[in-house]
Formats: sequence, structure tokens, C-alpha cells
Amino acid sequence: MAMNERWTDPSLFLNDDFYLSTPLARRLYHEIAAPLPILDYHCHLPPRDIAENRSFDNLAEAWLEGDHYKWRLMRANGVAEDLVRGPADPRERFRAFARTLPMAPGNPVFLWAHLELLRYFGIREPLCDTSADRIWAAARERLSGWGCRDIIRQSGVEALCTTDDPADDLSWHRRIRKSQEDGSAGAFRTRVRPAFRPDRAMNLEADGYGDWIDRLASAAGMEGGIGDYAGLQLALSRRMDAFGAEGCRLSDHALAWVPGLAEGEAFPDDAELDGLFQRRLSGVRPAAAGCDRFRLGLLVWLGREVAARGWTFQLHIGALRNNHSRAFRAAGPDSGYDAITDRPLARPLAALLNRLVLEEALPRTILYSLNPGDTIVLASLAGCFQDSVPGKVQVGSAWWFNDTREGMWQQLTVTAEQGLLGRFVGMLTDSRSFFSYPRHEVFRRLLCERLGAYAASGELPADPECLRPVVEGVCVRNARELLGI
Amino acid sequence: MAMNERWTDPSLFLNDDFYLSTPLARRLYHEIAAPLPILDYHCHLPPRDIAENRSFDNLAEAWLEGDHYKWRLMRANGVAEDLVRGPADPRERFRAFARTLPMAPGNPVFLWAHLELLRYFGIREPLCDTSADRIWAAARERLSGWGCRDIIRQSGVEALCTTDDPADDLSWHRRIRKSQEDGSAGAFRTRVRPAFRPDRAMNLEADGYGDWIDRLASAAGMEGGIGDYAGLQLALSRRMDAFGAEGCRLSDHALAWVPGLAEGEAFPDDAELDGLFQRRLSGVRPAAAGCDRFRLGLLVWLGREVAARGWTFQLHIGALRNNHSRAFRAAGPDSGYDAITDRPLARPLAALLNRLVLEEALPRTILYSLNPGDTIVLASLAGCFQDSVPGKVQVGSAWWFNDTREGMWQQLTVTAEQGLLGRFVGMLTDSRSFFSYPRHEVFRRLLCERLGAYAASGELPADPECLRPVVEGVCVRNARELLGI
Amino acid sequence: MAMNERWTDPSLFLNDDFYLSTPLARRLYHEIAAPLPILDYHCHLPPRDIAENRSFDNLAEAWLEGDHYKWRLMRANGVAEDLVRGPADPRERFRAFARTLPMAPGNPVFLWAHLELLRYFGIREPLCDTSADRIWAAARERLSGWGCRDIIRQSGVEALCTTDDPADDLSWHRRIRKSQEDGSAGAFRTRVRPAFRPDRAMNLEADGYGDWIDRLASAAGMEGGIGDYAGLQLALSRRMDAFGAEGCRLSDHALAWVPGLAEGEAFPDDAELDGLFQRRLSGVRPAAAGCDRFRLGLLVWLGREVAARGWTFQLHIGALRNNHSRAFRAAGPDSGYDAITDRPLARPLAALLNRLVLEEALPRTILYSLNPGDTIVLASLAGCFQDSVPGKVQVGSAWWFNDTREGMWQQLTVTAEQGLLGRFVGMLTDSRSFFSYPRHEVFRRLLCERLGAYAASGELPADPECLRPVVEGVCVRNARELLGI
Repeated sequence: MAMNERWTDPSLFLNDDFYLSTPLARRLYHEIAAPLPILDYHCHLPPRDIAENRSFDNLAEAWLEGDHYKWRLMRANGVAEDLVRGPADPRERFRAFARTLPMAPGNPVFLWAHLELLRYFGIREPLCDTSADRIWAAARERLSGWGCRDIIRQSGVEALCTTDDPADDLSWHRRIRKSQEDGSAGAFRTRVRPAFRPDRAMNLEADGYGDWIDRLASAAGMEGGIGDYAGLQLALSRRMDAFGAEGCRLSDHALAWVPGLAEGEAFPDDAELDGLFQRRLSGVRPAAAGCDRFRLGLLVWLGREVAARGWTFQLHIGALRNNHSRAFRAAGPDSGYDAITDRPLARPLAALLNRLVLEEALPRTILYSLNPGDTIVLASLAGCFQDSVPGKVQVGSAWWFNDTREGMWQQLTVTAEQGLLGRFVGMLTDSRSFFSYPRHEVFRRLLCERLGAYAASGELPADPECLRPVVEGVCVRNARELLGI
Repeated sequence: MAMNERWTDPSLFLNDDFYLSTPLARRLYHEIAAPLPILDYHCHLPPRDIAENRSFDNLAEAWLEGDHYKWRLMRANGVAEDLVRGPADPRERFRAFARTLPMAPGNPVFLWAHLELLRYFGIREPLCDTSADRIWAAARERLSGWGCRDIIRQSGVEALCTTDDPADDLSWHRRIRKSQEDGSAGAFRTRVRPAFRPDRAMNLEADGYGDWIDRLASAAGMEGGIGDYAGLQLALSRRMDAFGAEGCRLSDHALAWVPGLAEGEAFPDDAELDGLFQRRLSGVRPAAAGCDRFRLGLLVWLGREVAARGWTFQLHIGALRNNHSRAFRAAGPDSGYDAITDRPLARPLAALLNRLVLEEALPRTILYSLNPGDTIVLASLAGCFQDSVPGKVQVGSAWWFNDTREGMWQQLTVTAEQGLLGRFVGMLTDSRSFFSYPRHEVFRRLLCERLGAYAASGELPADPECLRPVVEGVCVRNARELLGI
Repeated sequence: MAMNERWTDPSLFLNDDFYLSTPLARRLYHEIAAPLPILDYHCHLPPRDIAENRSFDNLAEAWLEGDHYKWRLMRANGVAEDLVRGPADPRERFRAFARTLPMAPGNPVFLWAHLELLRYFGIREPLCDTSADRIWAAARERLSGWGCRDIIRQSGVEALCTTDDPADDLSWHRRIRKSQEDGSAGAFRTRVRPAFRPDRAMNLEADGYGDWIDRLASAAGMEGGIGDYAGLQLALSRRMDAFGAEGCRLSDHALAWVPGLAEGEAFPDDAELDGLFQRRLSGVRPAAAGCDRFRLGLLVWLGREVAARGWTFQLHIGALRNNHSRAFRAAGPDSGYDAITDRPLARPLAALLNRLVLEEALPRTILYSLNPGDTIVLASLAGCFQDSVPGKVQVGSAWWFNDTREGMWQQLTVTAEQGLLGRFVGMLTDSRSFFSYPRHEVFRRLLCERLGAYAASGELPADPECLRPVVEGVCVRNARELLGI
């Protein structure tokens, strides 16, 4: 059977070898990558759901509750907002989603939805208008009596890191851990860890900054409150210690852009940062330039603290958020109104990393940009800041709008061509959904396909045993090292 | 015959299956896409030529009269300017073009020229120095007694939209329409419509602004002339109504960059715009910042007017024009001296679209950028501004320098991965030539190849009937909806 | 044997047909490209090594002495700096490199290292921990009694251009030339020519500017020294003449960014440049804006001088250098701490080229940007500035971080789609290593594969004789014309 003819076979859809076009890719995937456990070191799952072993009644609840990827597609199909985010009837919402999907060939949501149906529900039928009710019923039956811990366990997740605010008391994390220690969690042994995301401390321009500082003081046990920058540092430092005690090994920082220095400007010192901070606490918002200098100064300090604890520093750069201001007022953040920005970052990011080098406080760092044009810039910068630890500074996996066939391929290719693919810490879901672990499967297939394609072109020996350390490293070993497992 | 061996077959050149490497792609193309009519909703054909059913004596006239794509290639081959744009002997000019083409493998002009020879003249021979005279003679024979209406009809064009200045009186459009109504156009039934391109109103920095305003006043029947911004609005509004009466359903706006607001700056109000406009009429050119604010204010107003009429708003962003200033003085605009620019656009474009949202006046919008690095930025922004109409805001087809194999593939891939490919309004020629409809064929082949490749990788069911609505939507249905057909 | 199955064959690794997936590509490569000599018109080989016919004791000396590509990979693998750059034991350094390589699938260093082992040492075995000592010994044996001239000759190099400072007296070049004229160079007939790189003249902000000016004066025979801008021009002009006498036909200019004009600003005149220059000589560093204006003014003058001599002007744009400031202090420049920048360049570059046009002094120009997102921008700009000479302004081959499978493919594709691939001047090594000529082989394979892929998709006739002028042009003819050979 000639190669082309293979593709006429309808059973090709999500079959065992999908995305795997060479014998080497198939061997690497099936023999090495597929059986490995998952380390999902960056996600947005609610720890409360895990602690309470939440279950889901139906696919609308499972899929449409908070998934802005799906919401965006439905809106692009002209679906009315009450069907998109609710409060319309869940079954009608599911039908509206089912009508949308056939318009979305090539979209990752198309792939993810069908792969989730296959892996969790045993359903291979394409979801569309006519199959919607049948799939709804079959999935509902399967969902009954099934908690989110079962989904995590069935997915082979060895560890996952949620994303948490410093003012969070981590009580749900403690509950999960205790239930695992006292055996009441049953067979659920996945390590569930917090990650430290102090964005609210950095953004002086945000509404409610002072209220959040009060909550932070309370979480940090500072009964007198936080009145100056030193107090903020103390509070954050205490929370980092508390996070560390719950197994936290990563921080995470969202930057719409990388704050930079104008020509001749010095990095802000503590006195300047204290002045900006106290002004904000007094209710006066600094101008944009001041907010940026505060962000920069605090970020450098956070980098030092991360380095001191041996954690990993994650920078998520370039999301232009809440662009539709009426929808933002109605729906709040993370509702599908965010976009990719295009502001140059090479020079400010180089200056930031170098500043940490000069303080001998550069932590392990993972750089993410939402703009795929930045990937090679980040990779070239990462290559300037390596020392002593394999893969010390690296480009993170294809993020958000880039979590697509093309985006992942590009990230893997840039990582391979500009550095050491074998030291890449690999995939994460970045997801709010318990059903998104098949994204790791998608990634692993593409990783194996990428290696297979290099071998097919003759530039890499087609030897699975030579490539085993690379595949195992990217799938589990490098992430385990990050998490100290 | 193994796959590779196929490619040794010389008959592969432009054969029935060119660009179609999978059985699914071939079925989608031949059974669904190929027979569909063409809706060319953005081109630069001269309506006068259609009204007069202009004919062409030879291939120099047909190809080299105004095609700056071909001029650029000839110049890059060292051809002297009198052979490029004339006034040298047409046959010599054609020979110079024929000598250039063999240096251009992979260039769209190579593909287009040969596809036009094949589809319109039945010639499959490669054009080069030795075949030039033979092809010249054969084509000349075929051209005799053949008008541009015949070419349009033979190409299966259901509708086309020219690009027209508000000061144009649309008399040629009326003549065409009347000849179709009274039967004198014969079998020529293609809808020929104007599109509204008021760039000259926006660009206060241009020479001759006042003269153009006088012409606009005259076209709008404002005998007292236009003396203020309200008068400009009235004139444009009247012209939009007149354009609408001739079937116009799209506006089009060229922006070298997206005008933005400095931090803290508000959108300009009518008083400010009136001040800028009157200053310009008095002969004083505002500074660049003022011209930009005028452009921004007028653009917002135009968006409202477009929305009010249910039209579609097209933004063509990022052409850096007339870079060779001596050649510009000699040859004028659109002579092949334009380039791609690289100015960030995410933030100003988000602000512009959001401004229209806040005024509840966001029309259907198609975003084009000349820089392919912007495509994913535009797609992510488009996804923030959807409501109620399928595909309300979307990225337009690969424009100008991107109208290539790679550019179209990238645009299709980004559209698929970031949104709903099935809601894409599809291809346009953007051309000044009556022979450019085969570009729709090229596009349709790539669309089917793109879908075939998704199915071949196993992420999409290889079912032509499932994909029929997508192919038909992209080829005709979505564009018909735009045009209200 | 079906296509896929081919790739299971372990002998595929660097076999005769690697990178060549179609019969046409294989014919173009083996019958046309492979036998052609190499013209390496831009490299960083030390002329002294060639003059002295330096030999290498071992692979650490040959590979790890100055190759920052390899250093970066080793650092990314956590290798300590004394093993990376020395002074650790050479054999240990080689072992550390050998341990790094298996982590680098897809990296060009992986390909280059193995291709060099194969072509120069007859070793096909993958380099890793276990093969390191065996390969070390075998290579050492082969290296003994083998000088760098033998390597160049065996590589089939017809001409090479080193990169030289205007203050260099070119004595090594003269020695090489004389040894060839008097026959003492034996069979070594490769033309070894200097290229003119006056970066140190342009960068007023650099330390030691005055000292360098003194050295320049001395090289230019200006005993009274250089005291003003006219003196600088005279000195540079004399050195250009001296370089020309040694066969120089290219200049080369590194620009971290393209200096531009603020709105309304004029190009600097000689009086302004003289003021800036004299201020710097007096020990006062001008502000950044002043340094930029000096760079711009001198660059325009250099362009004129290059044009007057019929040379070619090379602009290397966008390297962000020495980002790790502690490492820079320890290791100096070109040690692996450079990155890709992302500053917009379209407008200032268009202005610079147009300025030269207005002075009727635009030379042949090759544009390189380190950011691959710029490639299509450069290509579109190049298309605006063609006249009279085929390929007058063009995009150079994929540079530095882009000298990868993906980077070369993208450069070839953009060149083909935006202009005349057949007029491209082709590959260069840009290397400090005598063993890097196989990069020309890699390039030629990709060139043939690129053409083969166009033919395979049906848009190009699969006729080797039609494509011969393109392949020969890109591999040798266009570069010969550049060098006046």
C-alpha cells in the first residue's frame, strides 16, 4: 500500500498511530513515551475540586464551565452569549458547541474534544449536530460516580502544580496532602502542589491593590498589616516559605510586556520602590512608568528569592488582556477576550536576566511568550545565561494560543535547533479542566514525530535506544528534577 | 509506484492534481471546490475596461501594463526600466519577461504565468527565452476578438468588487449594470460592484488634499463645497449611500500603521478633528501626530457608518510605500516600490476595535497585515471581538507579498488553529489583471490540501461529506453572505 | 519498499541522499551541485593560520578553541566553564562535548560535527560518551601532518574572504598571495581575500575608540594622525584602496539596529559628523542619539565608497551582544553570549537605502538580519531597490542562529517566493573553523530539496536542465560575479 493510500482509510482518525508518520516515531512513542507518567508542572486546576473529589454531571459542566478556548469558538460561530457562558440550559449549550465543532477543522479544540471523548468515554464518533444527543447521553452515564481524582489517576498523573495566589492559605492543598497521608484519599497518590504566582503584588495599577495587600498580610500572619515595601517583601517571603512547605518549587509571573529601562536609567532601588508602594497604599496610583519600575524592581527581588530557594522562575510574557471592555465588565477576566501582543522584548529581558546574574541570583528560568515570533529570540537569550545546571534557562512549551500542532512543532524545532532538546522540561496543560491530560499525549506524539522526521531526513541516527534519554528526559526526567522528585 | 517515483513524471507540472497530495484533498478539490463559482470581493480591475469590454492585443499588454509583481522580478533580473514599464517594443518587453522567468522557480509569478497560459491559452510549455516567440504568437491569436468580459465569464465569476474612490461618480458601474439590465451585455451576468475606499479623506499629509476634497464635494452634490469636518462627514455619507445603491457592501482602508493613542490620551472628538481638517484646508499640514489623530478619528467614524449600513470593514495594514523616491517620482505609486513594514499593531488595533464596541458600532471586519508575523496576532484579536454573526471579525486571505504557497498555507493554518476555518470568507485576487482568476484555483487547491493534511495526520475524519460545508463555505457561501447575495 | 519503510534503514544517517527526498532533488544535487567548487565569500578564518599552514593536534584544538556554537551547547548541558573554554585537559573537554551531543538531536552542531567526522575523518559513528575516546584517537592520527591549507584544498574551495579590520596591515594576506605567486604554496591555489569591516570606526560609544583611530592612522600612513572627520574619511578611503589591491570586493557592517531618523530629522551632514567625531577624540562620549547619528552618517558615506569601487555592501543587522556581563568580562566578545534582537527595521532601512539611491550611490547590497521574522521584510525592501544589475539588493543566506535546517529552508523559500532564487549569491560559512565547509554541502542539499519540493507539488517542471542555471548560479556563478572572478 503506497503512503498516500493509507490516508484513505477512515480508521485513521485518532488511531493508534495518529501524528506518527515514520516507523521510528511510532517506536519512540509506543515503546518509550506513551507508558510514562505525566508531570503537569503548570496548570490552573482548582485545588478545592481535587480535595472534594468533585464530579461532573454532564459534558456541559465538564467542558463549558470555564473553558474560554471553547467559548471563543462558539462566539466565532455566532452563538449567543447565554449559550456560550450560560445560563442557558446545559444541553442546549452542549448542542451549540456540537454545532460549532464541524466548522473547526484543524483547531486544537476539535482534536482535544474528540481525543477526550475517545480516551475518557470510549467514543470515537465525530461530534456534530446529529451525534450531540447520543454523545451527551453516553458521556453522562460514564460520568456518574466518577470524581476528578479518578480522572487524574486514570490519566497517569504523577504530579501536578496548581497556580496560587500568595494570599491563598493553601488549606485545600493541606487537605489533599493529609488525606493522602492518612489513607483517606484511597488510591489517589498524585502529588498536588501549589505554585507561587504573586502577580497581584506587582501590579500597582490594578483596582483593589490595597485590599489584596491586606489579605496578603493576613495570610502572612502580619497582624499589624503591611505598611511599606520591606513589609511587602517580608510577607511574600513568608508565603514563599509556606508554599515551599507544601511542596512548591516554581513561581510564575505574567507580564503583558517586559518592563525595561530607558537609556541611562538605573534599576530601581528599595527607597524608590518603597516610595511607589506607599504612594499606592495611600490611594494614589503611580503613572504607568512608575508602575513599570515597581514591577521591574519587585521582579528582580522575586527572582533572587526564587533562586535562594532553588525554585524555578517562570515568565509568561505577552498577553494583551480583556480587550473587549464591555464583555470584560460582564464576564470578568479569563473569559476569552485576550490576545497576543507584539512588543519587542529582547533588550529588556536580556537586561533583567543579566541583572540577576550580576546579583549572583539567577534562578532556573523558563521563558514563555505568547507571540511565536519571539520563540527564537527567547531561545537565543536563554543560550546566553546557562551555567552549571543542565537546561538552566530555557523556552517553555508552546503556550495558550500556541498549544496547537503548528505551535508545538515550532517550539520543538526552535528548541532543538537553538539548544538541547534533551534538556527541555516538556509539556504542561496550563488548563482549568480535569479532562485536558490528553494534551500530553498530543505533545508526546509530536515530540516523537519531530525526532522521527530528523532521522527520516538523514541527519539523526534512527536508533530508538540512542534517543531514549531524550524522550524520557523531555517526558518525565527533566520535570521531575524541577520538582525535586 | 512508490510515492517518490511519482515526482519523476514530467507530466506532473500543473497536472490535474497539482498541490493535491492526498486522496482526500483530490476528492475535496475535484468534487466540491473546483466547480464552484468565484466571488472576487476585493480587486482593482478598472470598471471602465469592463464597461467597454476591452480586449488585449498581446501578452505584453495583458501582462506587463500594470503588474508590479512582474516588474519587480524583471528589475531583479537586471532588465532596464524601458523594457520593464515601457515604452520599449512590447515584444521585446515580453522577451525580457520570458528571460526572467526561469530565474524565478517557486515565485508565484512563475506559477501564475504558467497557469494563465494553460487555463486561458491551452499552453503548457514553460515560458523562457526559446519558447517566448512561439507563445507570443499563439497567445496573440487567441486574444483576438476576446474581451475582458469573456475572460471573466469563462473564469466562472459570480461577482466581483472593484476598489473605488469616494469622488468617483460610479458611471462605469452604472453603465455595466444598465447593459446587464437591458440585455446589451449579452451573456455577461457577473455582478460588478464598487467597494468604498476613502483613503484620500484620511491622509491629511498627502499633496493635493484640498483638490481632492473639492472633487469629493462635487461628487456628493455639495455645491458650496466642503468647509468643515461635518461637511466631510456629510459628503462621505452621501457617497456611501450612492455606493450602496450600486451594490457596495464593503469598505476598505489602507493603513501604513494602525494609529494609536499615547498613554493617557483620549480618542479625538469632532472639535479636534474639525480643527485639524480646517487647518489642512487652509493649506497648513498638521504635524505627523495630528495627521495620525485625524486618521484615527475618521476611521472610527467610518467604522460606525460601515456598521450602520451592514457593510464589512476591511483594514489593510502595514504597507511601506514608495521607498525608492526617484523611481516614485518617475513612475508614480503602485509601480513596485513598496515593502512590508514591522511596526507593532496589537495594542492600537485592540483599542480601535474596542472603541467601536463601546459605541455599539463594530461592523463585520476583515483584518489584513502585510507582515506575516502579524497573522496570529490579528487572529487572536479577532477572537476577542466576535458576537452574533458567524465570523464577524476575521483575518483576511494572504495579502500581496503573502499571496504565495507559503503565505496562503500559513494564513489557512493560523485561521484553522486560532478560529473557525469554516467561517473564513476566502480568497480574493486583489489584482489589476483580468487574467488573475486562476489564483482562486491555487487557493482552493491549497485549502483542500490543508484539510487533506489534517486528515492524513489523523486529527480530522477523512470524510468529504463532513468537510463539504467547510469547503463550500470558504469558497462561496461566506463571501455571498458578505455581499448579501 | 514503501516510502515510510525507507526510514527504518539505519544506513540512512548521512548517507549519499540525506536531505534529498525526491528523485529530482537527488539528480540536481549529485549531477550539478555536488561537484561545484566553493566560494566562501564571508568567513572569519584567521589569515595567519592560512599563511602558516597551521595544523591541529586533536579534535579539542580543531573544534573547541573558538567555536561558541559548541560552547553554548556544552553550557546548556551544565558543563563547567573550564571544560567549555579551557584550560582543562583537551581530552576531558572533548569528552564533555561528546557527552553533550546526544542531548542535541536536531541541532546543527549535531549535524555538522558528524558530517565533519565523515567527510574529513571517514568516521560515521555517532559521537557520544562511549565512542569519544575511539574517535579522539582516530581523528588525531588523521590530523597529524595535515595543515589547514590541505583542509581548504580538499574541501574544493575556489575562493574565500576573511573579515578584516581597516587597521589591519594585511601582511598575512600578502604572504599568502606571494607564496602562491612564487609557487611556495604548492598546490594551494584558493584565492584568499580580505573583506573590509570598519565597525570600529562607526561605534563612538566603544572603549578605546581613540586608540583604534591611532592604529588606523598608522595603517593608512597618516603620520600626523587623524584629527577630524575628513581625516577619518581619508584614512578609511586609503585602507579601502589597499584592501582592494589585495582583492577585496566586499565590505561588511554589523548593526545591532539600523540607525534611523526621528520625524522631521535630516541626515547628518559632515559638519555634524565632524563635531561628534572630534568630541569623541577629545574623550567625551556623545549620548546614544549622537552615536547613532554618527553611525548613520558614516554608513551612508561608506555605502558611497563601496559603490564607487563596485564592491558589495553587507549589512548584518540585529545581534544583541554580550548579554551576560560577568561572562563578557571573563571571556570577551564572541564567546557565546549573544542573542537575537527584535527592533523594527523596515523604516530606517528603507530610508538608508533610499538615501544612497538619492546620491546615485547605492552599491550591490546584501541584507542579513539575525531575526528570521525580518527575512520577508528585507526581501520586500530588496525588491524596491533593484536596478541594472541582476540581484543588486538581496537577502543574504541564513545567518548564525538561522544557519539551521529550518532557517535555511525559510530563507530559500522567502527568496524564491519574493524574488529570483536564481540570482541568490548563496552560501557562506561565517565560520572561524577550517572544518566548516560541509555547511556548503548542507546548503546545497537543501537548495536541491527545495527545488525538488516545488516540482513535486506540480508548480515547477521537474527538468534538471531547466534548473541547472539556477543551481549553478546559486552555488558558484553569482558569487563569482560578486568577487569579480
